[in-house]
Amino acid sequence: MTELESLIDDLVRPIEDWPEPGVTFRDITPLLGDPAAYGAVIDGLVALAEEAGPVDAILGIEARGFLFGPSIALRLGVGFVPVRKLGKLPADLLSTSYDLEYGSSTLEMHVDALAPGARVLVVDDVLATGGTMMAAADLVSQAGGVVVGNLVLIELLALGGRERLAPIRCSALRSY
Amino acid sequence: MTELESLIDDLVRPIEDWPEPGVTFRDITPLLGDPAAYGAVIDGLVALAEEAGPVDAILGIEARGFLFGPSIALRLGVGFVPVRKLGKLPADLLSTSYDLEYGSSTLEMHVDALAPGARVLVVDDVLATGGTMMAAADLVSQAGGVVVGNLVLIELLALGGRERLAPIRCSALRSY
Repeated sequence: MTELESLIDDLVRPIEDWPEPGVTFRDITPLLGDPAAYGAVIDGLVALAEEAGPVDAILGIEARGFLFGPSIALRLGVGFVPVRKLGKLPADLLSTSYDLEYGSSTLEMHVDALAPGARVLVVDDVLATGGTMMAAADLVSQAGGVVVGNLVLIELLALGGRERLAPIRCSALRSY
Repeated sequence: MTELESLIDDLVRPIEDWPEPGVTFRDITPLLGDPAAYGAVIDGLVALAEEAGPVDAILGIEARGFLFGPSIALRLGVGFVPVRKLGKLPADLLSTSYDLEYGSSTLEMHVDALAPGARVLVVDDVLATGGTMMAAADLVSQAGGVVVGNLVLIELLALGGRERLAPIRCSALRSY
């Protein structure tokens, strides 16, 4: 196990039976509260982002994707595009509905958020079933862009997100 | 007008009558999409944060506070504490209800998010009536911490947030 994986194990706490019985939620808030660890995680995510090849924008999914995406975008020197829940973005919208681990939802993105042909890396905290990232890919496709990779802090292997998202590549700092 | 104020004027677009008639919403998404401008705004916020004096934690309010707070916390070398909407945080909680510009809401924070006596700087994108930041201050107080300042990208002067939050000091990069 790498030092970074060990750090994540120490500072991401499993919360059993949340938000519903049988689900183990990965709570990243202790990691956010430790600046050395948070910085190391950002460094690790930037390194994985660079491996994914050149990108034109980082797309972050509300809300926990906002905790990592902007720092990565600023480090790479590219724009940050927020994908938000229904009714949160004020200008002309693209929209997509999808099933997620605990129900269903709608995600939105501004129609002018991406240049045509933009190469996009999608960032979130956890990859579970991949439903949210599939929805993000749909929004990018509607906008005429291309998702070149999905990047997360934590991947939950048993939920099959990576397989569902293929052939788009997924990168994670830690897998459970 | 400073160069940074001019940049904010260029890249924060006013959306009239959103989310309801008579309200002008300040849409920061074009700024997020411009890495040089986004970086300059973070630099400016870090400078204002340093003027507020030493702090032990940056508290960011869901969701747009997450777009600025983590970068500031990492630059200052202190922890980041997310304040979230009802039902989003998984561990033991502090909670507060409040009125905001377009209705009412509840904010939550983990009980273990702050060390006793922690000096906290609260970060959000826009200061309007100050209701959200009053709620954040209440959570910090419940946790035994002290808010040493409120820090925003944009302050809407006519809505009186600064007066409502006094004696806690507010800092903004741009005022309208």
